[in-house]
Amino acid sequence: MLETYPQPINLDRSVLADAIDALVACSQACTACADACLSEDMVADLTKCVRTNLDCADICGVAARVLSRHTGYDANISRSLLEACVVACRSCGDECASHAGMHEHCRICADACRECERVCRGLLAAMS
Amino acid sequence: MLETYPQPINLDRSVLADAIDALVACSQACTACADACLSEDMVADLTKCVRTNLDCADICGVAARVLSRHTGYDANISRSLLEACVVACRSCGDECASHAGMHEHCRICADACRECERVCRGLLAAMS
Amino acid sequence: MLETYPQPINLDRSVLADAIDALVACSQACTACADACLSEDMVADLTKCVRTNLDCADICGVAARVLSRHTGYDANISRSLLEACVVACRSCGDECASHAGMHEHCRICADACRECERVCRGLLAAMS
Amino acid sequence: MLETYPQPINLDRSVLADAIDALVACSQACTACADACLSEDMVADLTKCVRTNLDCADICGVAARVLSRHTGYDANISRSLLEACVVACRSCGDECASHAGMHEHCRICADACRECERVCRGLLAAMS
Repeated sequence: MLETYPQPINLDRSVLADAIDALVACSQACTACADACLSEDMVADLTKCVRTNLDCADICGVAARVLSRHTGYDANISRSLLEACVVACRSCGDECASHAGMHEHCRICADACRECERVCRGLLAAMS
Repeated sequence: MLETYPQPINLDRSVLADAIDALVACSQACTACADACLSEDMVADLTKCVRTNLDCADICGVAARVLSRHTGYDANISRSLLEACVVACRSCGDECASHAGMHEHCRICADACRECERVCRGLLAAMS
Repeated sequence: MLETYPQPINLDRSVLADAIDALVACSQACTACADACLSEDMVADLTKCVRTNLDCADICGVAARVLSRHTGYDANISRSLLEACVVACRSCGDECASHAGMHEHCRICADACRECERVCRGLLAAMS
Repeated sequence: MLETYPQPINLDRSVLADAIDALVACSQACTACADACLSEDMVADLTKCVRTNLDCADICGVAARVLSRHTGYDANISRSLLEACVVACRSCGDECASHAGMHEHCRICADACRECERVCRGLLAAMS
């Protein structure tokens, strides 16, 4: 889709496409992990995980939308939002990793957060 | 991810996973197509397309989230939202198809809408 | 804001503005109620309420956005999405009402859902 | 609603409630301004405004959701997202202000962005 964009884009299109894919995958994993945590018998021990999952899902989902827009591009908005993604993915990855031995959904979600954090850092570096 | 869900799910998990994937892909295509339309010289002729793209992106994105939740499942909510997706994908697919000969992003987006409409109809049939 | 819109709108602007306000208020109440439920000691008894709150917050939030767009207006999309709102508000209002005696946040959220359902039905009637 | 929250909240509840209200109002104003711009005859001169409006609407809308969650509160996520809101509101406020003499919806939206930026800065100060 990015290749059909009718104007120049200031970034390497494949780096940008990878970032959007990682953000969407992370948002999906966090939404699903929040709900799986709600279905665990020990949900009372997982409420922080649910909350961090919901935040990370929201922030990464919105970042994927913002990065999909190139018209009237404002690098400051993308950069500050990517920094928020790095923070959210770090927190959510840490939280999910602490339950990964017990819950497979947390293990998968932690991996998605780590990968998304890595890709967002890469895009931030490419933008500077 | 769906296979790690700790409770039974009332639907065939692969049908559900396909629907979530199609909804996410359609939402992404519509977000990108809206922005590509904004960058066309003839944007004044594409404002209806931008608007329908934004609506379809919003509705399909939210449906992917709702379908990713299984705790306390309420089939009525999923069903009515899938019906809204079918309507939005039909409208957006028709609108984008009418520009597909001129704009490659509209052609790709029309395909994503058609596929998403087909998959949503299939899930609605599986749910009844 | 609606009064500054540069083209005609097919609906009574005050009915439309009331619906957008009710949808936004309901979405906010559901987001806050989901989080308050997560903080209750008896969270294990409230997981269905959390899930329905999250669905209703998502659907009403998106409906407010769709109704805020008038360019290239497609009544079919608005109508089907309002029907999904009615279903979600009904389910969430019922679920929250069943906990209203015990949790004040559920009582407030049930009221917001009932009001939003009423306003969405009114707008649907005005559109037909 | 905030007063019914069953656990302590680390922030002054009225400062927090004001921030959520300003974020929701800004998100709504930006969504409506984007659509009003699409309906102007001179839409080709307003595409940057539409794009910045869509970004600001998305970011402020998500920040309102994140700030509505207090369970398992992580100040780093809120802080980085509020910083993204400040940047988005600044950009969108500047862009809309430059069209405010010509379009009343841009004037109203610029005011909402300025107010939201001010309130977000205040909350950031209260959090540090």
